[in-house]
Amino acid sequence: MLSSKQEYVKRISKKKPALYIKGEKIDNFVEHPNIKPMIDSIGLTYDLALKEEFKDLMVANSQFVNEPINRFLHIYTEKEDLLKRIKLARLLSQKLATCNYRCVGCDILNALYVTTYDMDETLNTTYHNRLLDYIKYVQQNDLAVSGALTDVRGDRSKNPSQQDDMYLKILEKKADGIVVKGAKICQSGALVVDETVVMPTIALKESDKAYAVAFAIESGTEGVTYVLQNNAYEAKKRETPGWESGNPYGDRGTFLVIFDNVFVPWDRVFMCEEYNFAGLLVSNFTDIHRYVGSGCKAGFIDTMVGAAKLMSEYNGIQNASHIVNKITDIVKGQESCYACGLAAGYEGVKTKSGLYLPNALYSNVSKTLGLPAIAQAAINLADITGGVCVTAPSEEDLKNPEIGKYIEHYLKGSDSVTTEERMKLIKFVEYWIAGPHLAGAIHGGGSPITPNIFIQRLSNVDEKKSFVKELLDIK
Amino acid sequence: MLSSKQEYVKRISKKKPALYIKGEKIDNFVEHPNIKPMIDSIGLTYDLALKEEFKDLMVANSQFVNEPINRFLHIYTEKEDLLKRIKLARLLSQKLATCNYRCVGCDILNALYVTTYDMDETLNTTYHNRLLDYIKYVQQNDLAVSGALTDVRGDRSKNPSQQDDMYLKILEKKADGIVVKGAKICQSGALVVDETVVMPTIALKESDKAYAVAFAIESGTEGVTYVLQNNAYEAKKRETPGWESGNPYGDRGTFLVIFDNVFVPWDRVFMCEEYNFAGLLVSNFTDIHRYVGSGCKAGFIDTMVGAAKLMSEYNGIQNASHIVNKITDIVKGQESCYACGLAAGYEGVKTKSGLYLPNALYSNVSKTLGLPAIAQAAINLADITGGVCVTAPSEEDLKNPEIGKYIEHYLKGSDSVTTEERMKLIKFVEYWIAGPHLAGAIHGGGSPITPNIFIQRLSNVDEKKSFVKELLDIK
Amino acid sequence: MLSSKQEYVKRISKKKPALYIKGEKIDNFVEHPNIKPMIDSIGLTYDLALKEEFKDLMVANSQFVNEPINRFLHIYTEKEDLLKRIKLARLLSQKLATCNYRCVGCDILNALYVTTYDMDETLNTTYHNRLLDYIKYVQQNDLAVSGALTDVRGDRSKNPSQQDDMYLKILEKKADGIVVKGAKICQSGALVVDETVVMPTIALKESDKAYAVAFAIESGTEGVTYVLQNNAYEAKKRETPGWESGNPYGDRGTFLVIFDNVFVPWDRVFMCEEYNFAGLLVSNFTDIHRYVGSGCKAGFIDTMVGAAKLMSEYNGIQNASHIVNKITDIVKGQESCYACGLAAGYEGVKTKSGLYLPNALYSNVSKTLGLPAIAQAAINLADITGGVCVTAPSEEDLKNPEIGKYIEHYLKGSDSVTTEERMKLIKFVEYWIAGPHLAGAIHGGGSPITPNIFIQRLSNVDEKKSFVKELLDIK
Amino acid sequence: MLSSKQEYVKRISKKKPALYIKGEKIDNFVEHPNIKPMIDSIGLTYDLALKEEFKDLMVANSQFVNEPINRFLHIYTEKEDLLKRIKLARLLSQKLATCNYRCVGCDILNALYVTTYDMDETLNTTYHNRLLDYIKYVQQNDLAVSGALTDVRGDRSKNPSQQDDMYLKILEKKADGIVVKGAKICQSGALVVDETVVMPTIALKESDKAYAVAFAIESGTEGVTYVLQNNAYEAKKRETPGWESGNPYGDRGTFLVIFDNVFVPWDRVFMCEEYNFAGLLVSNFTDIHRYVGSGCKAGFIDTMVGAAKLMSEYNGIQNASHIVNKITDIVKGQESCYACGLAAGYEGVKTKSGLYLPNALYSNVSKTLGLPAIAQAAINLADITGGVCVTAPSEEDLKNPEIGKYIEHYLKGSDSVTTEERMKLIKFVEYWIAGPHLAGAIHGGGSPITPNIFIQRLSNVDEKKSFVKELLDIK
Repeated sequence: MLSSKQEYVKRISKKKPALYIKGEKIDNFVEHPNIKPMIDSIGLTYDLALKEEFKDLMVANSQFVNEPINRFLHIYTEKEDLLKRIKLARLLSQKLATCNYRCVGCDILNALYVTTYDMDETLNTTYHNRLLDYIKYVQQNDLAVSGALTDVRGDRSKNPSQQDDMYLKILEKKADGIVVKGAKICQSGALVVDETVVMPTIALKESDKAYAVAFAIESGTEGVTYVLQNNAYEAKKRETPGWESGNPYGDRGTFLVIFDNVFVPWDRVFMCEEYNFAGLLVSNFTDIHRYVGSGCKAGFIDTMVGAAKLMSEYNGIQNASHIVNKITDIVKGQESCYACGLAAGYEGVKTKSGLYLPNALYSNVSKTLGLPAIAQAAINLADITGGVCVTAPSEEDLKNPEIGKYIEHYLKGSDSVTTEERMKLIKFVEYWIAGPHLAGAIHGGGSPITPNIFIQRLSNVDEKKSFVKELLDIK
Repeated sequence: MLSSKQEYVKRISKKKPALYIKGEKIDNFVEHPNIKPMIDSIGLTYDLALKEEFKDLMVANSQFVNEPINRFLHIYTEKEDLLKRIKLARLLSQKLATCNYRCVGCDILNALYVTTYDMDETLNTTYHNRLLDYIKYVQQNDLAVSGALTDVRGDRSKNPSQQDDMYLKILEKKADGIVVKGAKICQSGALVVDETVVMPTIALKESDKAYAVAFAIESGTEGVTYVLQNNAYEAKKRETPGWESGNPYGDRGTFLVIFDNVFVPWDRVFMCEEYNFAGLLVSNFTDIHRYVGSGCKAGFIDTMVGAAKLMSEYNGIQNASHIVNKITDIVKGQESCYACGLAAGYEGVKTKSGLYLPNALYSNVSKTLGLPAIAQAAINLADITGGVCVTAPSEEDLKNPEIGKYIEHYLKGSDSVTTEERMKLIKFVEYWIAGPHLAGAIHGGGSPITPNIFIQRLSNVDEKKSFVKELLDIK
Repeated sequence: MLSSKQEYVKRISKKKPALYIKGEKIDNFVEHPNIKPMIDSIGLTYDLALKEEFKDLMVANSQFVNEPINRFLHIYTEKEDLLKRIKLARLLSQKLATCNYRCVGCDILNALYVTTYDMDETLNTTYHNRLLDYIKYVQQNDLAVSGALTDVRGDRSKNPSQQDDMYLKILEKKADGIVVKGAKICQSGALVVDETVVMPTIALKESDKAYAVAFAIESGTEGVTYVLQNNAYEAKKRETPGWESGNPYGDRGTFLVIFDNVFVPWDRVFMCEEYNFAGLLVSNFTDIHRYVGSGCKAGFIDTMVGAAKLMSEYNGIQNASHIVNKITDIVKGQESCYACGLAAGYEGVKTKSGLYLPNALYSNVSKTLGLPAIAQAAINLADITGGVCVTAPSEEDLKNPEIGKYIEHYLKGSDSVTTEERMKLIKFVEYWIAGPHLAGAIHGGGSPITPNIFIQRLSNVDEKKSFVKELLDIK
Repeated sequence: MLSSKQEYVKRISKKKPALYIKGEKIDNFVEHPNIKPMIDSIGLTYDLALKEEFKDLMVANSQFVNEPINRFLHIYTEKEDLLKRIKLARLLSQKLATCNYRCVGCDILNALYVTTYDMDETLNTTYHNRLLDYIKYVQQNDLAVSGALTDVRGDRSKNPSQQDDMYLKILEKKADGIVVKGAKICQSGALVVDETVVMPTIALKESDKAYAVAFAIESGTEGVTYVLQNNAYEAKKRETPGWESGNPYGDRGTFLVIFDNVFVPWDRVFMCEEYNFAGLLVSNFTDIHRYVGSGCKAGFIDTMVGAAKLMSEYNGIQNASHIVNKITDIVKGQESCYACGLAAGYEGVKTKSGLYLPNALYSNVSKTLGLPAIAQAAINLADITGGVCVTAPSEEDLKNPEIGKYIEHYLKGSDSVTTEERMKLIKFVEYWIAGPHLAGAIHGGGSPITPNIFIQRLSNVDEKKSFVKELLDIK
């Protein structure tokens, strides 16, 4: 049954994760100014699912439990599912202007779905059914699931096994489960969910088979420590959680998740030493995640386009041709990226497992368009806003009894807007131009080099030689 | 019934058009070295339709005459038709590496289909059925149809009516038809087809209603004069029609088509003074044509990718990382453009007339990606080839008894290839880097500024303001 | 005589400016964590001038007071001065990786030097000598001088006089001086200097003559209120002034400077109602400042190149070809910008006043290259670093007794580096990719549209028509 | 003494080179439609030197023969020489809109000047004085000197010695001279000059010492065969040498130059087996040639800017903001490239030999800016012109008695221009957008990868690490 935000919050409030923020152990994490916006963000994925207006995108009918479920828990066995998935991503980004924290979990579940099917077929393992049971469990209880891939990696010139415990690994296989050790980094929302699914981040060789491990854990499982990222934006949110911080839902909060001898029972283990399926799992995941990511980025940019237009009106420059062009340029970048994503979905292919995977070539091409699109959007938005996007005084200055009147007067724009509204928008622009987003656009879904490698492999260059040979009558 | 190339050639051989090439009147046009490649190009659109391997894309079932027809004459009343249309465009470009001369005609017929439907609904005219009869006629006789839009335009700061006969206009309306006067330029293949459909190139005001005219004429109709473009490539083709000219199918041959008091009977007139539908017809056409164009360009680039890979092997540099990257960069540009096109097709919308139009936003975005893609492809291809792509000696030098041995020796590449093969490929590269193609990519489907204007209109910026207002609680 | 940093700090410590930071009045500003780094930054401009190694760039011989002075107070009456100026800018940016706070003041003094000369010639005013006296004063006392231009501007569709006090204006002219009112924003370092010179930010018409005002004030003058910018980076610096904040010298601190009925004696007034020289003063300033800015940005990027190389070593990827290429791409962008700046200096022109102005065309072109260079540099640097540049734990986490060991282990890179060193560098990368710098690169020296307008004016297009006419024998 | 064009033509008319064009042996080469424009082009370098107006750039005072000489024969022993050299290149490109055929020769003489000096110092050879004698000879007789570097290279994965005679080599060393065999390709103007200097095109190892050879030959020396490039533009020039071909001076004509056992006397040999100086000679040459090339390209683009402005007026669109912006964008690209070149000159370094070499880093950076600048210029020019730039009828059509009236009418633009003038300009645009120029911009001065390799080597990345280490207190 679909939960409400309230129910979700109640559920996670009971957890007692070992959480550190800026060197401090945090007990009441749900009220912490860095964590609360994340909970509100996930909360919205629950609340929107209950609204008639958004049902078509937010809710799916599970093939497995035969009831309406949140689409973030859905397995794409129809092409339509794949298409709604990318549109869902765009919708949430439009509403949140930040991470919804549920994409990676959803995408890992789908990647595991197809990969465990292939594993079982080849190796006679039984992971697929085990995974299916787990999927039914999270669907029936409407749980929020995050995902964890990125290992810390240490010296990248070395394989996992050439280093001392830099990649997450299987320490021990026991009768009732496995014990894992290691750390995952850049984990969006790892804490504020019910569950986290974990998988490797690179293809592996036999010598690295201890690192071929995928599983699920409940948030706050014993032995797991969460350390929140610390960047300037987190500092600001701690200091001024109000509109001064630009986005009420905050930036994308990620964690370093440390697994110190963590026990995982077998019914939650979906890969265990099958090293030659690690690469396949990764590429299935990235095909899906880069696809979904183009919807996510398009939605972010929707808020930048809206902000750019609003700001141009606040500044009285909405009719200047260079301003209009700069907004149109944002749209071109954004829609190029999104349209490639759409094409990946529509040209998706049905796998043996029944799951639809997006077209890998277009998915990877869309990823390469996302970074320039978001960089140009942020730059053009800041251009239209003026230097004030990083040099404005604060909400507290506006509210100060001595100097508030100055701020009120001098930060005002056109008559169509109050100073507070303009300052809110200025701080939202700061959030985009001087926050951690570019880094997110660079590395989210894999570093820029990786889609290029995929595109090279997928581009079928040799077949194209035949066109030329036929045309020119060359052998 | 589907014709063969032979039947098509026989048909057009009987025509006696007034044709001028480089100041000379041409009588036996089918054998002229500038014209024959165009005929071979169109010929292939007939021959491929008869091959089992290509039937799925080349042949459609007509809704109107209930028989298999060449897809270049098909009306897209199913979304699948729209998708096959763009794939058809890519296929032909891969096979020809030049224009197939049938896209514009096909796209005008479809644009007229939806526009005449709307005209009739609004104005109680009867153009739609008239057009339907015409469509049945060309389908049943498997005729090649080209299209003509671009007026010469003179001084662009002036409207059609402010100039002396610079845009094609209705000179007289008579009982049995109309008389038109004017000229159309940049008409790809206007001559080597059975039929040409003609439409305006810009939106019109009431004062310009004499210019709101669309109709069909048979090739070689009295009063029509065709003047072939003259550019360097045409000169080369006249001088050396063999492999020296790079592409056996030649470059895109276009004509200046002069209408000097040409009579058109009413059953071939599809717009006559309905000036406020001129803009709609144009935008329907460009939405379709820019969509199709992304398939066309992707196919062209397929031959460049193939040539780049082949040449890298001929030059012994296929494993250098910068070469591999340069080819991958071509693919990224190409597939970005094509994927946007695909998205436009998949997100196509059914009109009242039953015709599917591609999504206008993605269609226009794909057009903006085509030019940089093709420019980068040509540059990278020439980069991989070396300066020799424009500085090589000629086929005749290779065959010359005195110096042929030198050319044979010094133009050779790796052992995998003969000198003649390498020179053929070099000349094919010359065709792309030093031919008229960039200009075609710039202006085909409208000058670069026009898709930008469409994108601005279609980008729905104001709706995006609402996301920001809701997020920031701004009124 | 050249002062030391210590003397400079002692001097400004005596001032009692009305300063607000995040809604709070600050008394001991020299120790405030947001202000101290600025003081250290300016301090370095004093200390370097005393070091033999940097004398050539840091110190000049004044033409006016006949003694060695800090080059930031120098007037460029030799072309060599102009060249050393841009090299000075690069040097400081390499050392500080942030603003040195003295460029704008220096550039305004020079712009006033040439403009007051022209004003006096045309209008028989006596500003030039007055300015000269002021210049001698700051030179003899080795004072730090900042500059203030940017008005808050309100509704940009309106002129200054069409709005209520949005641009700084002359309220009253009195026997002994003038009274001004208004505000300047984005004022780098306005507070932590001895003196600030003030000038208009746009060309003015007669109706706006009250806004044509240039003058100098001492820091902390009565009636002046300073409000520090508030952005995320400032919050972080307040919270963790140590290496967690990435750059010991902080980001570019700017202020909103409010002039509430401030009195300026005549000997410090350098423009008063001469509205038709406002535009000239602005363009003289921007020609100089955009020129200097290319040195500044090149120096910033030097630290990014260094950081990128170091990080690639820390991550064990220094030999990967795509990493090497990404660093080379940064260098290309950086040196393009800087070389254009150099060209502007070398092609500088001597004005009647004796001052050398940089070539305006190249100065403006260099400005247009700075933004893409710095954006690409930041993106490539973050690419090489990994997502960790915004998701890393904090210095406090590393030092925490419970989890410090985890951070120590898991944040380590190659054996060549300690975890603390790698984390310091990570935080420095955060500083560049997730700080306010892009906004600075966009708007510093004027919004992106303005250099384009200058380039258009300066490009002498019509003369170039004559080459074509001569070549083609066209009249 | 400075010759006139007439004297130059008289001199070369006496030569009897073995020349082949499109498979035919050519006897009266000076009147051949492909060769005459080249002669006119070089001719202008003589005639301009006699005009007072151009003396400052065209004429230099020789340090060696103590008389005024054509600057194309000058050795740069003053920095001013270096600067005038790049300005000379721009001037000629503005006048010719094509190659002047004397740059490579000039640049090789200068590269040999510095390299032979170093060779002699290291190896106790006597090449430098021998070269000096040769330089005096060409200066005193005011000879036109072209240069030849590019070997045909065959399979690039193999060294010269691993292939059968693909690089030019020393076949025999005799008492009175050497015998060489091989071929050079892409040789601009190799034929229509008095002399050609020849050098290697890559760095060489000991096993390739037979390929380390530099020397001078007189045009038409026995054993040398010249084969003109054949591309579409050459075909057009043969067919229509008038304004139809766009540029009266033609495109850049290059030759394949075959050396079949050619004897060179010792006094014309400047390198003979000194393999470890081949790389130095090449890098000295490319530093100079890339530097000069930025002037050359800027001058070409000057004619494109002029053409774009003229055409916008002919088309009545000169005031449209997107047209103005497109022209400004051309200028930005052009001046970025040129300003980098200027910086390379001004920052040039004096070598031991007394010769000034341009700053290698800026020289290479300027080369990387040239290609995008020229590509963008051509694209924007064609954009402004319209598709007609490749689809226009011909000069002959305009002059045809039957259809000339149509062309006259329909090809007309605004009232400010005749149809013939507009068509001349259209053909000039065709020359730029559909000619061999992009390929020239890609490979002239070395393939795009080579400047990148130089930039990487020259970028001093490791020194930049020290800035970061100092700033962050990292060891």
